[in-house]
Amino acid sequence: MQLEAVYHRSNDCWAYGYNERTVHVRIRTKRADIEKIEVLYGDKCKPWGDMQMKQMELLASDELHDYWQAEVNPPYGRLAYGFLLTEGEEHIWFTEIGFDQAMPKEHLGLFEFPFLHPIDLQSPPEWVKNAVFYQIFPERFANGDKANDPAGTLEWGGKPEYRNFFGGDLQGVIDHLDYLVELGITVIYLNPIFEAPGNHKYDTQDYMKIDPHFGTAETLRKLVSAAHKRGIRIILDGVFNHCGVTWPPFQDVVKNGPNSRYYHWFHIQEWPLHEVDGIPTYKTFAFEQTMPKLNTANPEVRDYFLQVGRYWIEETDMDGWRLDVANETDHAFWRAFSKEVKEVKPDAYILGEVWHDGMKFLQGDQFHGVMNYPVSNAILDFFVFHHGDAHSFASRLGRYLARYPQQVNEASFNHLDTHDTVRLLTLCKNDKAKMKLAAAFQFTFVGAPSIYYGDEIGLDGHFDPDNRKCMIWEEEKQDKDLLSFYKKCIKLRKIHPALISGTFRIISADKGSSLLIYERKKVEDQLIIAMNASPTPARVAVSLPAGEWATADLSGNSSHNGKKYQDEYWTELGPYGFCILEKKGNMM
Amino acid sequence: MQLEAVYHRSNDCWAYGYNERTVHVRIRTKRADIEKIEVLYGDKCKPWGDMQMKQMELLASDELHDYWQAEVNPPYGRLAYGFLLTEGEEHIWFTEIGFDQAMPKEHLGLFEFPFLHPIDLQSPPEWVKNAVFYQIFPERFANGDKANDPAGTLEWGGKPEYRNFFGGDLQGVIDHLDYLVELGITVIYLNPIFEAPGNHKYDTQDYMKIDPHFGTAETLRKLVSAAHKRGIRIILDGVFNHCGVTWPPFQDVVKNGPNSRYYHWFHIQEWPLHEVDGIPTYKTFAFEQTMPKLNTANPEVRDYFLQVGRYWIEETDMDGWRLDVANETDHAFWRAFSKEVKEVKPDAYILGEVWHDGMKFLQGDQFHGVMNYPVSNAILDFFVFHHGDAHSFASRLGRYLARYPQQVNEASFNHLDTHDTVRLLTLCKNDKAKMKLAAAFQFTFVGAPSIYYGDEIGLDGHFDPDNRKCMIWEEEKQDKDLLSFYKKCIKLRKIHPALISGTFRIISADKGSSLLIYERKKVEDQLIIAMNASPTPARVAVSLPAGEWATADLSGNSSHNGKKYQDEYWTELGPYGFCILEKKGNMM
Repeated sequence: MQLEAVYHRSNDCWAYGYNERTVHVRIRTKRADIEKIEVLYGDKCKPWGDMQMKQMELLASDELHDYWQAEVNPPYGRLAYGFLLTEGEEHIWFTEIGFDQAMPKEHLGLFEFPFLHPIDLQSPPEWVKNAVFYQIFPERFANGDKANDPAGTLEWGGKPEYRNFFGGDLQGVIDHLDYLVELGITVIYLNPIFEAPGNHKYDTQDYMKIDPHFGTAETLRKLVSAAHKRGIRIILDGVFNHCGVTWPPFQDVVKNGPNSRYYHWFHIQEWPLHEVDGIPTYKTFAFEQTMPKLNTANPEVRDYFLQVGRYWIEETDMDGWRLDVANETDHAFWRAFSKEVKEVKPDAYILGEVWHDGMKFLQGDQFHGVMNYPVSNAILDFFVFHHGDAHSFASRLGRYLARYPQQVNEASFNHLDTHDTVRLLTLCKNDKAKMKLAAAFQFTFVGAPSIYYGDEIGLDGHFDPDNRKCMIWEEEKQDKDLLSFYKKCIKLRKIHPALISGTFRIISADKGSSLLIYERKKVEDQLIIAMNASPTPARVAVSLPAGEWATADLSGNSSHNGKKYQDEYWTELGPYGFCILEKKGNMM
Repeated sequence: MQLEAVYHRSNDCWAYGYNERTVHVRIRTKRADIEKIEVLYGDKCKPWGDMQMKQMELLASDELHDYWQAEVNPPYGRLAYGFLLTEGEEHIWFTEIGFDQAMPKEHLGLFEFPFLHPIDLQSPPEWVKNAVFYQIFPERFANGDKANDPAGTLEWGGKPEYRNFFGGDLQGVIDHLDYLVELGITVIYLNPIFEAPGNHKYDTQDYMKIDPHFGTAETLRKLVSAAHKRGIRIILDGVFNHCGVTWPPFQDVVKNGPNSRYYHWFHIQEWPLHEVDGIPTYKTFAFEQTMPKLNTANPEVRDYFLQVGRYWIEETDMDGWRLDVANETDHAFWRAFSKEVKEVKPDAYILGEVWHDGMKFLQGDQFHGVMNYPVSNAILDFFVFHHGDAHSFASRLGRYLARYPQQVNEASFNHLDTHDTVRLLTLCKNDKAKMKLAAAFQFTFVGAPSIYYGDEIGLDGHFDPDNRKCMIWEEEKQDKDLLSFYKKCIKLRKIHPALISGTFRIISADKGSSLLIYERKKVEDQLIIAMNASPTPARVAVSLPAGEWATADLSGNSSHNGKKYQDEYWTELGPYGFCILEKKGNMM
């Protein structure tokens, strides 16, 4: 056994409360190095003889490691535990003191998850894992009220530029709610809607006011209410890392300098404000002088933005915040923000924009989930760019699944594109089979999928500003085949609890291969999915567990002429083809 | 290179803010497996070509691993980084994506410490690392006011029992402050002093009142003020995990059951309260029915104890809280508590009773330090019980040093015994040479040492109640040799900045050996220390770096006839002997 490879610590993803009764314990070992791991656990105030043993399950594997998990229930809240690693005749114990041939003899020195407190649980709202998100860039979704168009509004469908406008607004979203209902959407994530000069509204000028070109607080209330009536929730984009240069407090500093009462609302390093080699003398988002960084550690600033966080929920009953550049804002602020939001709406969703490992934000005190760029990038690398084989893709997924608590993975915001990236169809070089394959994976993986507006009807686009084209509403110009495909993806997710909170298990992901086979399973609900991430057709044989099996209507670019022979299903997947096998009789 | 052994994640001890300008980055590798590690780092918004490289230092080693550290200064707050591992001709890059032969080409995919915010720093008060603590069990330290003695008070110096009293009180502490000054103490940690029926006062009856047998709020004010005049700080013991059964809110529940307005202040699982097989139907400390667990997640309870936390600082100007059974109380409560305390006294010390890995409490939002039982146990195992050799001792220390941020280690509360353990002298079976050796290590290791009252004059005792004997004040009965030894230990620590915040480096710790040689160093201040944890004399040769060296006055049970030959110092250490070499001319 390669003991050097082992990692466990009683925090983060390694030991966490999963619900009010259950603690998940995980351990990392070298891949394929250890046959069996058991966890010895119990209450440290009970006699030693009351300790119990439980076998751990293999949760996931990456290139180098296996990750094991056990669910344990501390009967009185307290949990002391250790591990027994077995490979053949070799046994070794692992506790907080280290490795030992001898079994521990007392609780002292074991790992401890000292007490399972419901208040400390990382508990995303129940609805999130069942969600299908739809991201709307409001200036470009639909123009529902021509009366509020900015001066110089261009004709709908023109070429998007950094600074042009097409008149999209909140009434436009209201007008098309039924379209979203029909698609199957359950949550709308709106890019910023507060008053700001830019078309993207990330350069906020007034946090307490809806941009007049988008509508009013009343329009937002109407939108939320109309959406709620249709079973759709709304989350807003909160830009609290920085403001726009026209935000009055910053303008006050520009005018009054160190005499401004807002001087310490920012991070000003040198007055008067200027730039040295393109670097402003005050902190900003990136080095963008029009986006001054907010000093959220200043209690006045903190309280102001806590009030913003609370206000829009109280005023409109909206359902949560997506937080821009959340990783660069301080943890103390997010803890206060999270507390404030949960007080007004206990089941509001708090989603952070964090492109890298977000564990520090996901401990129950800050965010419920993060925008899952690492998983997006892995999906794109494998299905779209052909960087790496099935083995390396499965390895990346394994690592990502193992590094967050299970409830975080399930409530993750899984997108394939956003307003910050190239559009999926464009990434696929307009190869729809490829796009469908990537999306089919997105909808059958762990986490809540998000569709960037228009992807479902064939909207394309390179980087900003091209990825912010106007939505196409003329039905004859919409890609109906894609639309029908997305509807089926969403429906599949809705009828299969296994896709929401089932296990994810790799069945086949060989080195050098583009063929991926995996299983999702929850109790009796089970799916086996085969995907061919290659332009060359691939023959597939899948062993089917006992029961009746059928191919899902969704299956793309496969021969649909699969045959079942004894317990195996044989088929040929076309270029970028896939097939989804459902165990029958378990639909909800 | 054994890549499976590598561990890094951008949180906990692996990447943390050390001060307002500096981030410490650490990485774990297999022991003695990798020659050199460099960190590639920079601001993700600057051009890729601006990235810098810095070589990492070997921070510590344990049985299986090396731990490396680099200090980096993110020029604009943001930090993106990766590692380059080198062994001979072999080079491999390690980023958040994984290992790669090829150098990364862009910031995306690197590890990120997204922004260094002063408000998120783990920053113990400056004074803590310079502290020498003295723990006082008030009922047994000194009887300064016979008027407040409980009925049935026994004669001072009698045999301690679970429920007997000797009349110790706060006036007794005041009366002996000059003794503590002379000893060199800078902080007194008082076991609980609020009204409670027990002699230990962990069964609190009134959190807002000093136990009348100890004095009044006025006596505490007098004590704090008299201590402050002498440069001594006072920290109190806060028992907020559970109360005593006589606490009025619990008595109200006992009387009124579910109709009590305090019913939800506790964790009541079944009414009426009873026991089933020794397990109360309400949660308690351990299964101790006289210590009901407090429901600190209840906002009323939380606010009550935040007020307690604040009140005693405001009322008396005392300097911090040691928090009892802190690990079993919820994190949300400790976050609020820490915030509250820092508001009233920004340099108050918050010390948690956590016997195991305390990382979850040490991220800047809860405690400044924990009672360092893992290090105590390692010290006792090596010097006192002879469990394990120098190699395994050094390995344990290495692991413990690597698992917390540097500022946490420096502000750690390092005791060798407490009111919860057997006394050091008794653990040593009255072998004073052994005791001195263990204490000499305690005073020359990283972290603030604590003396349990009376250890310094030869007080002994087995487990509770025997470890709570009356302090001996008759000078003829005090062990003057021990007292003088402790004074020298304290003095040594005060004159050597290297002992406070210098590096700790093992020079020699061989397998099968009881000889340990280590260095403490800070800029020009340097000490080399050799310790013989064995009853057999040991010959030692120590290579001395350039400069003038002398043996410290403190050196114990060594021949004192050491010889210097060229750059080596030769000496013989007696049974449990040690010798401390100081580089001269660097005293503060």
